[in-house]
Order: sequence, then structure tokens, then C-alpha cells
Amino acid sequence: MVYDPKIVSSRRDMLKKSAALVAGSAALVATGPALASEQCASKQPKFDEIYDLIIVGSGFAGMSCANQAAQDGAKVLVIDKMPVFGGNSTINGGAMAVAGSALQKKAGVEDSVELMVSDMLKAGRGMNDKHMLKLVCDGTAESAKWLEDHGVVWKPFVQHFGGHSVPRTLQTRESSGSGIVRPLIETAKKHGVKMYDKTEMRGFVEDDNGRIIGIKVQSGYFWPKTKTGTPKVFGARKGVVMATGGFGRDIPFRQIQQPKLTDELDSTNQPGANADALKQMMLIGANPVHLDQIQLGPWSSPDEKGFGTASQFNTIAVYPKGIVVDVRTGERFFNELADRKTRSNAILTRRDDQNKPVYPVGFTNAEGAKRAQTLGWGLKYDVIKKADTLDELAKLYGMPADKLEKQVARFNEFVKKGHDDEFNRPLETAIEMKEGPWYAVRMWPKVHYCMGGVRVNTNSQVLRLTDDKPIPGLFAAGEATGGIHGASRLGSCAVAEGVVTGRNAAKNAVTQTAAKLELA
Amino acid sequence: MVYDPKIVSSRRDMLKKSAALVAGSAALVATGPALASEQCASKQPKFDEIYDLIIVGSGFAGMSCANQAAQDGAKVLVIDKMPVFGGNSTINGGAMAVAGSALQKKAGVEDSVELMVSDMLKAGRGMNDKHMLKLVCDGTAESAKWLEDHGVVWKPFVQHFGGHSVPRTLQTRESSGSGIVRPLIETAKKHGVKMYDKTEMRGFVEDDNGRIIGIKVQSGYFWPKTKTGTPKVFGARKGVVMATGGFGRDIPFRQIQQPKLTDELDSTNQPGANADALKQMMLIGANPVHLDQIQLGPWSSPDEKGFGTASQFNTIAVYPKGIVVDVRTGERFFNELADRKTRSNAILTRRDDQNKPVYPVGFTNAEGAKRAQTLGWGLKYDVIKKADTLDELAKLYGMPADKLEKQVARFNEFVKKGHDDEFNRPLETAIEMKEGPWYAVRMWPKVHYCMGGVRVNTNSQVLRLTDDKPIPGLFAAGEATGGIHGASRLGSCAVAEGVVTGRNAAKNAVTQTAAKLELA
Repeated sequence: MVYDPKIVSSRRDMLKKSAALVAGSAALVATGPALASEQCASKQPKFDEIYDLIIVGSGFAGMSCANQAAQDGAKVLVIDKMPVFGGNSTINGGAMAVAGSALQKKAGVEDSVELMVSDMLKAGRGMNDKHMLKLVCDGTAESAKWLEDHGVVWKPFVQHFGGHSVPRTLQTRESSGSGIVRPLIETAKKHGVKMYDKTEMRGFVEDDNGRIIGIKVQSGYFWPKTKTGTPKVFGARKGVVMATGGFGRDIPFRQIQQPKLTDELDSTNQPGANADALKQMMLIGANPVHLDQIQLGPWSSPDEKGFGTASQFNTIAVYPKGIVVDVRTGERFFNELADRKTRSNAILTRRDDQNKPVYPVGFTNAEGAKRAQTLGWGLKYDVIKKADTLDELAKLYGMPADKLEKQVARFNEFVKKGHDDEFNRPLETAIEMKEGPWYAVRMWPKVHYCMGGVRVNTNSQVLRLTDDKPIPGLFAAGEATGGIHGASRLGSCAVAEGVVTGRNAAKNAVTQTAAKLELA
Repeated sequence: MVYDPKIVSSRRDMLKKSAALVAGSAALVATGPALASEQCASKQPKFDEIYDLIIVGSGFAGMSCANQAAQDGAKVLVIDKMPVFGGNSTINGGAMAVAGSALQKKAGVEDSVELMVSDMLKAGRGMNDKHMLKLVCDGTAESAKWLEDHGVVWKPFVQHFGGHSVPRTLQTRESSGSGIVRPLIETAKKHGVKMYDKTEMRGFVEDDNGRIIGIKVQSGYFWPKTKTGTPKVFGARKGVVMATGGFGRDIPFRQIQQPKLTDELDSTNQPGANADALKQMMLIGANPVHLDQIQLGPWSSPDEKGFGTASQFNTIAVYPKGIVVDVRTGERFFNELADRKTRSNAILTRRDDQNKPVYPVGFTNAEGAKRAQTLGWGLKYDVIKKADTLDELAKLYGMPADKLEKQVARFNEFVKKGHDDEFNRPLETAIEMKEGPWYAVRMWPKVHYCMGGVRVNTNSQVLRLTDDKPIPGLFAAGEATGGIHGASRLGSCAVAEGVVTGRNAAKNAVTQTAAKLELA
């Protein structure tokens, strides 16, 4: 294997070398290429393998990009540093917000791209990149069908997720993102997409004009053992797409932006979800936006690790069809269908006088829980508890039984008359909870999603800090990008974003003039 | 003049060159210095002038740094790109929050560093860098005295600014930051500090070990005519301190982070307050924090440009001693002593059905306005209006007179009993407003302060994105840094930050081993 390290960047070097050395490299950046080339004759690099498009990351964005690019005739490579494909996308609920789906029409739900944009803007506190937001919402209906054509099977009903003004969420039959990623991997392979796992991107390769023409990788790498594997250089004639996700599991990095997100807070993310790829892009001049906007998932449980069984149970059962109460009072304390930021913030206020968490309890009854596929597992692992009566439920969690009964009766009254006098929660999907058995979980938020990331334009090109123009040959899609969601992402909008922007990156990348690259 | 451009960075190049060229330079960064030096033999640069410390920016932070460093025996240069020294620091209210001042003791106010930290944490929504916050609060009392020793004269009373739980704000006799910057410039010059205006920093100079040893500047530059002036290179044996302020007037850059901060929103900042220096630091690997946390000042008026006369009038008269009402109802709608974010957000909600601003009106009576030094100018320019009776006041702004009278009576009742039943505003400094004449202004927020900036440690060293370690030789102080204030800075804490961190940077920079530099 031959490669020319002189114009190949090295993430390992950048991230691990001593302070002085890393800073030393910086003077050369700012020197500008004209000066640099006077000074240092650059050689055309040789590549171990050459593709049209290289996609880093194999989640919703990466696999949507790969399929679209292959269909458009490109020779595609997908790499993932982890030993399994799919990243966080395989360990979430597989729910996708779609404006104008066939299932909405069937259910008589009136929706529009404009309404979805408006819901996301509201949750995003107006910080959203409106052009990208419009692009995503606009693409959802067509992309949901495109996913069906690729073997994705949706549940036969549409759901009402928090912060959305109408039911517009489709969910895979499996209640998991793997119901999207798995078929996309199958179809990609059928279309000739090459896929390497255990392959970590460690730097960009540029040509003399500053165009990104490839990446340096560590092949056969066992995460997180940094010294394993072999270096290789892959060429990308039409571009590199960074579909590298967020940094929710990178505790030191997230705490720099949000000191309160300590290691006491669990995360729903897979362990590889760190800031390395983001740093790589920033080092070559990408513009980071909204890095301090980090989302907590309001549906997780402290009684299990990660996304677990509670997240799906709460999303499909407790939040739309049950209530959440403070165990000390047995009373509700927030709108259970507010956006994620509002709900997480509300839950995090439940603390004792030592500032220790007092975990609220969310519950519904058998009718409310009937569509919750993780109920069985949750009960098995003792994360979800069952009680035949409210009195028994109160005892399980040390709640005042009389107050709890009053609260349920009061909520049922609201459902009956169609208005929540206390927290103005939309009640379209709510039910009167008249009898047990009851199913309940303790709740505490977990770090779930990074709204921040690199700034892109509507061609999914990564934009430069200095002048807001594209870095040639560099694209990004999905959670790796910042700005679409503003201050708070609504539930089921990450799948929408990943699929639509992944395909968008592919469509634009394949139209680029191919760089002339040479094999080693 | 001779300089070696090969290891000298060039902001002009970075910011102005074509996309391809700028990106092209990036490959070399990531290459790492070891590779770079194999490839490109670097030469020791020669400098036009050599100092121990070079300070970029001449506001509170820069001039405090300059004085401290000169007193500690350093040979110091201060540069400023603008034709006048002082930046934003000369056009604000000159108010400094101090925990434990002599004036507090005289007024019987009990205060502590811990209380100030806690107030700032609350306003900052817990996003604050606690180490830096503690350092700033801890240094205020000593720094306030240090300023007095340098000729600053405080008003003989302590004020209660919004979001502070006790009165702790000192203010210059002049009600302007020029009352601090002017004497600091005088004493600096006495101590031999060299000061160049019209001199723009355009890049860093590093040695082969990555230590910052100087800057490239454009001397004799007429802002914003980028092609004016002459390039020079200045050496800094002990370090460069970036006291370059925020980017409040950089409309495209601020809109990337906060799309709502359009050019419809005025700013209190001087026209040179752009993101150029921040970008320079990011290009050599500084870590940006909280760039989307941009503060609006809640005390400005749409009836004049910039900071104007209303800001001081509202700060010293309307907010502590008067009330702010919606002109359509004549009623209060927020706690007038809440932190700036809360107040600005409240004001921005006053809009008509076309989403156009409905400017609220703030007012107090003659007794409340007696300490407002800008009252005369405000009246002269017709920004502040006078009315003999509430009825007349109501007519001036088209408010319902009966409701306005009821509101004033109701507020007076709150003051009398010592509790604001509606918005829980602290009433220690409030007065019963029993009779006219009344003084009033229309209010609308303006972009005022960037909480975000580069991350630093408690030695005021700029920390690197990749590994959170210092970039050798590079310091930053004041608004150029990010993290101290979290999501919202409290009023009068910028002067505190600037003075304390400027001096802190000096104290640490002068202890560095001097680099050996050569004159051209």
C-alpha cells in the first residue's frame, strides 16, 4: 500500500499529538495555499481504492445517500468505524414525521409541508435554518414512499408525537430504526455499494485546488483501540459525504458546551457517537452552528441503560395516552405532548432539597398500552411495572393514593370535555383511563440528539466559516449537520432529516465533475 | 520592511481568497506539523517590531491587560483597527458589578462572591464555565479599587441592576465606559505602553513548535477599506492577548447562529464589532463555545441609533424606579428587574397581527428620573418624552388613560406592601410614583453582547478544539472569550469580566519564558 502522507490529513495526528505540534500545523493553514505551494511542492496522491462517492457513516443519512447515489449510477463506498453498521439509527424508535402521507389521508388528518415547518420552527425557537427545514419537510412524503419501495414496512396507523400539531408520524413495524437501516443496507448491496465496517475516517485528502478528493482511513480498526488496523487512502472522484451523526456520547465535548450534561446523565446513543468527525470538519474550515443545542430525550428511564424499553413505551403509550406525575404529589406537572426540550426541562426540575433527582412516574392502563411493543420486555426487566389498581400503583412508587386517584379522575374529565385546563395538552389521542391494569415507568431524560453540527447549503455542501461558501467536494447529511432543528428537534424528525438530506447529498454529489484520480 | 510570509498567517488571504484556495490551505493543517516540516523547511521569521506582549483590542479587557502587564515590567503594544481606541467599551454605561465594594458596605448591602456567582449562574441557565465565573467574581472588589487607583471615579452610590439579587453595580461618574477606558489609556501611556490605532491584526505568527510568537498587521489602515495601509509583522516574546470583543454588528455571521437577528434589529455595538478575530482564532484551532448565545439589550429605544440616550435612562430610572407597559392595554407584562434575556424576550412578544413591533413604553416620574444623566439629551432628541399628567402621557402614546392610571395605582400598592403580586419583581429600589411630571421612552431590544467566544482556561490561555489544551502563546480576555456568562449575561458584568480577565491574562502571560525573536 502506497500513499503520500504529505497532502493527507490525519485525524489521529490531530487529535493525539502534543499541543505544540498540533498548533504548529495551524500556521500553515493560515498561510494560504498559494504560499504553501510556493514553499512545498505537492504531489498528486495515489489511492488504494477509488470510488465516485465515499460516505462516512451508515445510519439513516448514510444509507439513504448510498442507495440514492447507486441508483443514480455512482460507484459508492460506505464506511463505518464500528463493528456493526447503522450507528444510532438502529437503536431508536424508527419513527418518521411525514407531511402528507397516505396513512394521514386514510385517517382523515389534514397536514401540509407548511404546517410541519411551522411546528418545527416553534420547537426550534425560530433558530432553524429555514431553507434546510423547508427542504426536509418538502421531501418527507416522497421519501417515505421511497423507503417503502426499499422494503420498509410502516405500522398501519399514524401517530401523534409531542410538539406536532397533527398526527403525522409513521413508525416501522419493528418499532426500531433497524426496520429502515436493514432494508437499505440490503438494497445498497444489491446495487453494488461497497460497505466496510471497522474502518475509521482519519482525515481528508485534498487536491491542489482545495477540493476534497478522498479520505484517509484506518482499516480493520477495533473501536476504541486507536492503534489497531492499517492506514489506507480512498479516493472519491465526486465527493465525500459526512453522515457521521452527533456527539451525544462524547461527555467531555458535550460538557464544554453544556456543563450540566455530566456523566450522571446517561445517553441513548451508541458508544461511538463522539465529536471526532465534527472536529475533523472544523479543522478544515467548516462552520459549526448551534453546538450547545443538545437534546435530552424526555421518555427514557433511569432503571435501564440507553434507549431501552421505556423510550418506546412512553412514546407510544404514556405520552399520548397516559399521564406523568410527581411521585410526591401524585399530580401532573407539564403538558405531556409539549416538545422534547420543554418536557425534559420539566422532568429535570423534580429534585429533592439535596438537588437529587426525584424520578417522576409515567403510566397508562392496558388500553393505553396496547400498541406498546416493548411492554413485555420492559416488564421482564422490571423497568415497566404492573399494578391492578391505582391504590397498588401508588404503593409501588410511594405516591399518595388519594391524590393519584383524584388526578386520574381530573384528567379523565379533561379528556371527556376535550380540553386540558391545566397544561393545554392536545387531547385528540388521549383516552379516559377508567380501569386497570396499570403500567408504569420511572422517568429521567437522557442525552439523545445534537441539534448542532456543520453548516450546509441546500445542496448539502459543507459551508466554510470564513466566507459561507462551499468546501468543494465535501457534503454532510443528517445529525452531523446543524441548524435544521434550531433549539429543539421534534420527535420523529431525525429520520425525516436523515433520509431526505442523505438523498439530497447524493443527488447533488453525483452531478459534480469527476476528479481524475490515480490508483497506487 | 522584510517579513517571511511562509510562516505568517494572513487574515486577508483567509477571509477574501476564493473558496478553492482557502479550502486548499486546510489540507496542510491536518497534515500535522511533523509532516509539514519534512515537506517545507520553515525559516525563523524577522519582525518589524518586537514586544513582550501584544494586545489586540483597546477596550476594558485590552487596556486592563496593558496596564497590568506594564506594571509587571513587560514591554507592551496595544493595537486597534479602528481610528479611535476603546471599542464598544467607550459607548456603554460604564457600570461594573462588584461583590463586596466599599459602597455596598456604606449602603449596608450584604453581598458575597458566592451570591454573585449564583446570580450569574441563574441568568446563564447553568451553562456558565464555573471556573472562569468564579475567577471573575472573585476579582471584582480588588479590580474596582485598582481602577480607582488608575483614576476611575465612581458615582457615590451603588445600583440594583436586573437579575442581581442585591445592589452591587458601581457606575462611572460619566455614566460611560469612557470613564474607565480614558484613564486606563493615560496610565498605560505613562507606563510606556505603545498604542497603535488604525492597525488591523491579520494573522498569527507561530514558531516551529506551534507557539504564537507574533502577529501580522495592516498598519495605517482605514477601516473598512481593506486595501489601505501597509503590512507589518510584530513579534511577541511572551504572548498575544486577543481582547477583540464580540461580533454583534456582524449581521451575516450572527444570523448564521440566530436567523432572527436580522438587519431590522439595531445593535448597540460600534461598527467594527465583527467576527474576523474570532474566525482567525478558530482557523488556528481555538474552540468556539456558545456562539449562538447572543444578547439583546432590553433597555434601548427604536427612536435613536445604537446605545443612545434611552439605554442609560432605562437602566437607572425606568427599570429600577418605573414600569414598562404595553401601549394597547396600559398594563405591565414582565418583571422589570428580570435578567436581560427574560426582559428582551418579553418585549419582543409585543407585536400586532402582522407581526410588526408594538413598541412598549417605559416611564417613571421626576423623582425616579433624578439620577438619569442622559435625560436632558433624550428630551432634546425627542427620544424621551415628558408629560405633566398620566392622562397626557397616555395621549402621547395612544394608551388607554383609565387603565394606565389603574396600573400605576396598583404598582404603587405593591411598592407600599413590598411585594409584586403579579411578576414578583424585587422592589427594594422601587418608588411609589405619586405625581408627575412623567418621563417616558418607547422600547425595543438591540443586539448588545456575544456570550459566545473562544474557550479559555483560568490562565486566560486559549484552549484547542482537538484536545482542550492551551495554544502556546495565545491568550484571550473579555467578550472575545465564551462561557463565563452562559445563556445570558447580567448587566454590568461585562466590565467586571473585561477588567478581571484582562488583568488575569497579563499576569499569566508575563510569566511565560520569553521567545528569542529577531528584528528584520
